[in-house]
Amino acid sequence: MPRYFPANSLESPRFTGVRTFMRLPFVQTTADVDFAVLGAPFDTGATFRVGARFGPEAIRSMSAMLRPYHLALDVKIFDHLSGVDYGDAPVVPGFIEDSYRKIDEFLQPLHTAGVTPIVLGGDHSIVLAELRAAARKHGPLGLVQFDAHGDVWDEYFGHKYTHGTPIRRAMEEGLLDGRRVVQVGMRGPLYEPHDIQQARDFGFTVLVADDVRALGLAGVVQAIREVVGTRPTFLSFDIDFIDPAYAPGTGTPEVGGFTSAEAQQLLRGLTGIHFVAYDVAEVLPSYDNAGQSTALLAANVAWEMIALLAWKRKNIKLQR
Amino acid sequence: MPRYFPANSLESPRFTGVRTFMRLPFVQTTADVDFAVLGAPFDTGATFRVGARFGPEAIRSMSAMLRPYHLALDVKIFDHLSGVDYGDAPVVPGFIEDSYRKIDEFLQPLHTAGVTPIVLGGDHSIVLAELRAAARKHGPLGLVQFDAHGDVWDEYFGHKYTHGTPIRRAMEEGLLDGRRVVQVGMRGPLYEPHDIQQARDFGFTVLVADDVRALGLAGVVQAIREVVGTRPTFLSFDIDFIDPAYAPGTGTPEVGGFTSAEAQQLLRGLTGIHFVAYDVAEVLPSYDNAGQSTALLAANVAWEMIALLAWKRKNIKLQR
Amino acid sequence: MPRYFPANSLESPRFTGVRTFMRLPFVQTTADVDFAVLGAPFDTGATFRVGARFGPEAIRSMSAMLRPYHLALDVKIFDHLSGVDYGDAPVVPGFIEDSYRKIDEFLQPLHTAGVTPIVLGGDHSIVLAELRAAARKHGPLGLVQFDAHGDVWDEYFGHKYTHGTPIRRAMEEGLLDGRRVVQVGMRGPLYEPHDIQQARDFGFTVLVADDVRALGLAGVVQAIREVVGTRPTFLSFDIDFIDPAYAPGTGTPEVGGFTSAEAQQLLRGLTGIHFVAYDVAEVLPSYDNAGQSTALLAANVAWEMIALLAWKRKNIKLQR
Amino acid sequence: MPRYFPANSLESPRFTGVRTFMRLPFVQTTADVDFAVLGAPFDTGATFRVGARFGPEAIRSMSAMLRPYHLALDVKIFDHLSGVDYGDAPVVPGFIEDSYRKIDEFLQPLHTAGVTPIVLGGDHSIVLAELRAAARKHGPLGLVQFDAHGDVWDEYFGHKYTHGTPIRRAMEEGLLDGRRVVQVGMRGPLYEPHDIQQARDFGFTVLVADDVRALGLAGVVQAIREVVGTRPTFLSFDIDFIDPAYAPGTGTPEVGGFTSAEAQQLLRGLTGIHFVAYDVAEVLPSYDNAGQSTALLAANVAWEMIALLAWKRKNIKLQR
Amino acid sequence: MPRYFPANSLESPRFTGVRTFMRLPFVQTTADVDFAVLGAPFDTGATFRVGARFGPEAIRSMSAMLRPYHLALDVKIFDHLSGVDYGDAPVVPGFIEDSYRKIDEFLQPLHTAGVTPIVLGGDHSIVLAELRAAARKHGPLGLVQFDAHGDVWDEYFGHKYTHGTPIRRAMEEGLLDGRRVVQVGMRGPLYEPHDIQQARDFGFTVLVADDVRALGLAGVVQAIREVVGTRPTFLSFDIDFIDPAYAPGTGTPEVGGFTSAEAQQLLRGLTGIHFVAYDVAEVLPSYDNAGQSTALLAANVAWEMIALLAWKRKNIKLQR
Amino acid sequence: MPRYFPANSLESPRFTGVRTFMRLPFVQTTADVDFAVLGAPFDTGATFRVGARFGPEAIRSMSAMLRPYHLALDVKIFDHLSGVDYGDAPVVPGFIEDSYRKIDEFLQPLHTAGVTPIVLGGDHSIVLAELRAAARKHGPLGLVQFDAHGDVWDEYFGHKYTHGTPIRRAMEEGLLDGRRVVQVGMRGPLYEPHDIQQARDFGFTVLVADDVRALGLAGVVQAIREVVGTRPTFLSFDIDFIDPAYAPGTGTPEVGGFTSAEAQQLLRGLTGIHFVAYDVAEVLPSYDNAGQSTALLAANVAWEMIALLAWKRKNIKLQR
Repeated sequence: MPRYFPANSLESPRFTGVRTFMRLPFVQTTADVDFAVLGAPFDTGATFRVGARFGPEAIRSMSAMLRPYHLALDVKIFDHLSGVDYGDAPVVPGFIEDSYRKIDEFLQPLHTAGVTPIVLGGDHSIVLAELRAAARKHGPLGLVQFDAHGDVWDEYFGHKYTHGTPIRRAMEEGLLDGRRVVQVGMRGPLYEPHDIQQARDFGFTVLVADDVRALGLAGVVQAIREVVGTRPTFLSFDIDFIDPAYAPGTGTPEVGGFTSAEAQQLLRGLTGIHFVAYDVAEVLPSYDNAGQSTALLAANVAWEMIALLAWKRKNIKLQR
Repeated sequence: MPRYFPANSLESPRFTGVRTFMRLPFVQTTADVDFAVLGAPFDTGATFRVGARFGPEAIRSMSAMLRPYHLALDVKIFDHLSGVDYGDAPVVPGFIEDSYRKIDEFLQPLHTAGVTPIVLGGDHSIVLAELRAAARKHGPLGLVQFDAHGDVWDEYFGHKYTHGTPIRRAMEEGLLDGRRVVQVGMRGPLYEPHDIQQARDFGFTVLVADDVRALGLAGVVQAIREVVGTRPTFLSFDIDFIDPAYAPGTGTPEVGGFTSAEAQQLLRGLTGIHFVAYDVAEVLPSYDNAGQSTALLAANVAWEMIALLAWKRKNIKLQR
Repeated sequence: MPRYFPANSLESPRFTGVRTFMRLPFVQTTADVDFAVLGAPFDTGATFRVGARFGPEAIRSMSAMLRPYHLALDVKIFDHLSGVDYGDAPVVPGFIEDSYRKIDEFLQPLHTAGVTPIVLGGDHSIVLAELRAAARKHGPLGLVQFDAHGDVWDEYFGHKYTHGTPIRRAMEEGLLDGRRVVQVGMRGPLYEPHDIQQARDFGFTVLVADDVRALGLAGVVQAIREVVGTRPTFLSFDIDFIDPAYAPGTGTPEVGGFTSAEAQQLLRGLTGIHFVAYDVAEVLPSYDNAGQSTALLAANVAWEMIALLAWKRKNIKLQR
Repeated sequence: MPRYFPANSLESPRFTGVRTFMRLPFVQTTADVDFAVLGAPFDTGATFRVGARFGPEAIRSMSAMLRPYHLALDVKIFDHLSGVDYGDAPVVPGFIEDSYRKIDEFLQPLHTAGVTPIVLGGDHSIVLAELRAAARKHGPLGLVQFDAHGDVWDEYFGHKYTHGTPIRRAMEEGLLDGRRVVQVGMRGPLYEPHDIQQARDFGFTVLVADDVRALGLAGVVQAIREVVGTRPTFLSFDIDFIDPAYAPGTGTPEVGGFTSAEAQQLLRGLTGIHFVAYDVAEVLPSYDNAGQSTALLAANVAWEMIALLAWKRKNIKLQR
Repeated sequence: MPRYFPANSLESPRFTGVRTFMRLPFVQTTADVDFAVLGAPFDTGATFRVGARFGPEAIRSMSAMLRPYHLALDVKIFDHLSGVDYGDAPVVPGFIEDSYRKIDEFLQPLHTAGVTPIVLGGDHSIVLAELRAAARKHGPLGLVQFDAHGDVWDEYFGHKYTHGTPIRRAMEEGLLDGRRVVQVGMRGPLYEPHDIQQARDFGFTVLVADDVRALGLAGVVQAIREVVGTRPTFLSFDIDFIDPAYAPGTGTPEVGGFTSAEAQQLLRGLTGIHFVAYDVAEVLPSYDNAGQSTALLAANVAWEMIALLAWKRKNIKLQR
Repeated sequence: MPRYFPANSLESPRFTGVRTFMRLPFVQTTADVDFAVLGAPFDTGATFRVGARFGPEAIRSMSAMLRPYHLALDVKIFDHLSGVDYGDAPVVPGFIEDSYRKIDEFLQPLHTAGVTPIVLGGDHSIVLAELRAAARKHGPLGLVQFDAHGDVWDEYFGHKYTHGTPIRRAMEEGLLDGRRVVQVGMRGPLYEPHDIQQARDFGFTVLVADDVRALGLAGVVQAIREVVGTRPTFLSFDIDFIDPAYAPGTGTPEVGGFTSAEAQQLLRGLTGIHFVAYDVAEVLPSYDNAGQSTALLAANVAWEMIALLAWKRKNIKLQR
């Protein structure tokens, strides 16, 4: 029995209680903790729609629907893991670099203690802060990025830090090992051919939406596994990877995207990869539908991440 | 020419008139009637979101868009059937067992007279009342259940009657023939492996979402036909079988679901099966989108059921 | 400095952190606590629209906007009070009497320890459980009820416990002193004249909406003070007291209601009354507007209640 | 006991059954009927927002909340009146003059039989058809019009029939007695001074919003009574008379309007006037809020009209 | 460098400025212009839901998200084309034939000058006016129509001009070459078998939804190319071709439709066809979701059309 | 006849055309222009809800409903004024000081040419940039500020520039003459008594909501006129001055606010004051209702400002 696990929804209804992720206890500790879910309610990096600052609240709200057993991976999560809701990183709305610093600092104790962070965004600019925190511990990282946009633009409006630029910044700062980066799902109108070429010049493997359809899901999984190998890797999921029909509540929706079932299949294919940190970003509740489908989807993405972690604990005994 | 048929929407606009299902006459009779559409506006069985009590109203509203000819089955419904909107079963909000009793009684005259009921829910707990009414006439029934959840949990919060438990109760009451039950579409986080095993222990054929994808739609249809055979069968459709992108207005949405086109194909494969009653449940208008897509979808599901009935009348002459 | 007080929103943004009421600590203790805010997410008593089970979540969400100083009463709340978010009472959706029992039990330790509870509903049927808990400590109570409906009907659909009947049940159970009950704001179509007469026969002072307009706000305040006097009193605020333009997210809206400014003036007039418990009920987020104005209003109503308590501590030194 | 009266909502929940106005029987008869509520789901006359064709459905839906006793007028409606939901007038979307003809014809049997029609719009252009039907029986009518706009413009886009012109057309056709016409509530930006002067030149009494505030509600009531006197009069209520805060779901909202309580007071002051027909128009559900406050308000306006009729039956014995 | 091209969204944020299509200059000229995007905000032809008059505004709003490079077709649009937002055609709400005349006249200078029009609807009845304008220049046209409905009904409510009849009218007026017409995507309940047969009798190739699924997307593209050949052709896209999950904001949604990715693949297959005019119709913003996904999708459809035009300029040098 | 004036909505429907403010021409010139409406779509200064960057678009959209004659002031605006939509100031989302600089520069040519700017926000932090631009021309300004918050906090989260601090910054920069500043409408929970005292220490006249109610509207108008006198003055209107029932689409709503009619009366009382610039801020469309009442209200506020300008031209002949 782990130290920290969710309230039982067969005993107390899921709509009761202060909303924490998956009804986990809200405790800011690293002792006896395997994973920590935390919010990064920051959206000053957004270049079009804003409001991702309310993303963590919405994802927590819908995460009450999550249950502890993962059928496809056949894993009872809390037989293997202890987890907490670690609260939100401090952020300073309107001030990007300040916020990066605070998010980075907030993540340090987790990495130090070997607790895997699962960050709920926030706009995708936050991934730079997360990569800084993770790379300080693990060195240059591999990256699996599901996203409609590569986020490798150089600047927006003459500025370096926005939600369209973090991956480029991360390369410049040496946080990523370009040959171990794979970007999946890019689509939509581009500014110019360079938008994709850029990433390839960094050594990234870029699988645009048409590539994904050509390879098939199993092919994509295979490609990802080959690119990232066995070394420490970051898994970043921008919810706009999924089509706006499934995820309308996002900041830069692009039509022609993927279904939630396809996303699940991709994530479930990533068992055993050495992920050291995860995030799911770009949920904007004020654009979500009445049923909050986008937040529910993001909660499920985070749950798949946790299940991957549990799977590894269950099946790779020596790992820790 | 049947006695009861819809208003002609080429003559009077579909947005006129008191809303009945498919613009059928609202008559509470069994004389000269082949099928009766009725509401069961009950939602006290819901364990998470509530509001299915307004489901029948919303489905009726959107059903004004239905027209009488089914292209794929090549059947002009009202060449073969006479149908009415039979109104709503009396229910007692807040009192489950009382409501079951009243729904059951309300259905009796229909079964007695050989009128096929098509019930618009309401939360899925109502299926227990419907099964009681149908089994009293036909004995233990086969069941085709499209649903994201098996609804075979034993109890919720220490209570036996909720929308998560009716199928188990039905087995305990002898209303179902377990070997003739097929459940299709289960997915989402579970409490434990037992959640699915339970149903298999009852003799059910359980095709979880991954099974459906592995078998293909034709394979699923084939499996269903084999399980239920030719004896009296109930067809129950929980709208959450379909993905929340298509059906956001529901109480317990689970991502990774099916499309409306897939649902149509499955339903259209069920021609000739001896269905004695139908329902479509778990439409919650207060969570639906502005276009009321979920209610429209549920109206179409009910329409597929009516078309199946018409197909049988057209193609299996001896049947009545 | 009190032991428990809110996070400072000039330091950490109001949209960060797990949502508790007014950003208070979530602690289930009675030690060093003056007031406790708690949810009663129950809505099985609702006879029309449902969904108040999500009321506490929504009110907590919007309560992040509250600040600690009350200008009109000139009171810095946390100079005088220590307060916590005490979480939600356990409830059993679908089972009224069970839920009453659990809510009552959950409130006992608070009353025993002299902690003033402020309950966030839930449908208004919960007030019966709250009155039971309060009367066990204090004996028959006075009541100030702001509401569009008197809630003294005898039964609905042949049943005794719904959100239209709790005040009558409370009289029958001896929880209220009828001469010390004042109901304010009744309006809307009625079933019959008896609907109001009933309450007057119990000895209640009933100020229907037209009476309020005739008396003026100061006159109403004066009348309330005279009726309830100095003995222990319960303050219950059904959000439908306020017009649906201001509070659309409620279960039984009645047009022709009061403004939020009028409600504030009435509440601010009640300084010094010996209130032993408070609630604010009938917030249904699924019917609220995008700006969640109803939840914001309910959060402000609860804040006025806390401010009344603080005012008493500041100005009536001997009281505790 | 009247022949036709509503279902009892203390016995069967208000959310059950096919939606008719106020849960009245849906019967197209004039025998034993005092008033008939009917829809005119037409909106081709709208010059800005459209969608009033769904107004009758929405008003019927929310009218389930109405109860039979009117406290302020002290009248039990169905002690004095028998009423039905008469369904919807046939209309031809896209064809104004055709629709006028059909609405007019649909109303004839009611006027002939002395049944008072209460029409649910539809855009306000329909009032011309209604006036034609009423004037054919009663001769030139008095008119009490609550509205943000006078609707006396000559033409829009070179055409004579829109929702901005019906009152002028009615004058030209001799359906109104200009000296017995009173328009109340005009406000908002105008095209030119002539917009108001026009109406005054017809002999109308025009009380713009500022006049209403200057006179006070009692003064307005007095003025109306003086203008219309005792002869046959039409009461037309455009929901945009009320401020968009209370009635957002309308086609041409104008800020600075009246509250629902003010509207109630005005209507309640009109007891005893010889109204021969009523309507409430311009409800656009697709612009209403989630709580459907506008439709609820319109249902209440219609209910006030019915109560005025009942009051007259109760208090003026000889009248029929 | 073309004369007219969009504002650069890497320099000025996409949410700034008066909303024109794709941030193109708003200029009503044909000089130095290759394509012109214009609105036809007309919806009097709608037989069910209305509000497409606000379609052009919504599509323009979301088109701010479009960027100038098309990856799949590998074309930088403004290397090959100069384009403007040409404003809206004058229309007369409530008057169909008048509006047809005005739209037709508004399009004349464009066809005369060889500027390709891309019309944003409006309900689909406008296509008749557009076909008149295009056929006057080019003679009887080929037509590629993506749509859930064939729009070849004879009349609605006894009238000839509605959004269900324009294609039939166009045949009767000799604007189309029936053998060069292909309709793709018809589905949903029909009135009778004749609904489809009608079109086939005109010589049309009709690929109903089931045909599309049987042929596969490549097969459909092949069929279209064969039918329309190399002569002047019109491309009309009714947004209800796409499933309501992706395009909820439309007037006559039909479940079981296509995804946005499928639509993209079909459109991208039509390179090189001699399209002389395009439209995208039936976007109803008041039924769209908060994220305005339908408008975004329609903007992308228009963008695919522009890219087809650019592809032709890039790859077929002799064409102009 | 002025050079620039709106399209005539009796000739072309208000829902046609590219959306400019009040259907004015979109021209970036100062020649022959009296007033210019422009957007400042900036919201990085927001400390709670974000999204005001879409405010100008929404206000422009709803401003199509404005007409040119002001009845209460009896002024035909375009008999006296020529006006344009001047487009949006360039802003840099995420970078406050940069954006201030750009807004300031964008306003310079207007002030230089004597064109009165009417700025549509944007969060209220933009007022600092506007004051800089206006004070450069006119010296320290008087200020009439309608607002729920004084915006004189010193800092938020350790930073100086947010939407809670601009008025304090303006004092520090010498842009305001403190004795000629009047703030009207402050209400809601405060951090501490100092929040109001601060402003008074600057010499401001602060009329909190209770003061407004005590003085009456005429008293407030009188007080404003006395404070600002005849010298150059800025009029800034934060839409949250008005109650969230009327203006739900705003960033920091406070209950207990004013009605739109009260706001109109206050604005109409300010005739003749020497206003040199105006703004209306804090409209957040993603929190507005379906009817966009908040944007409509803001459009009306801007229209009152324009009418004040026209009134002055009409009645004070020597002024320019």
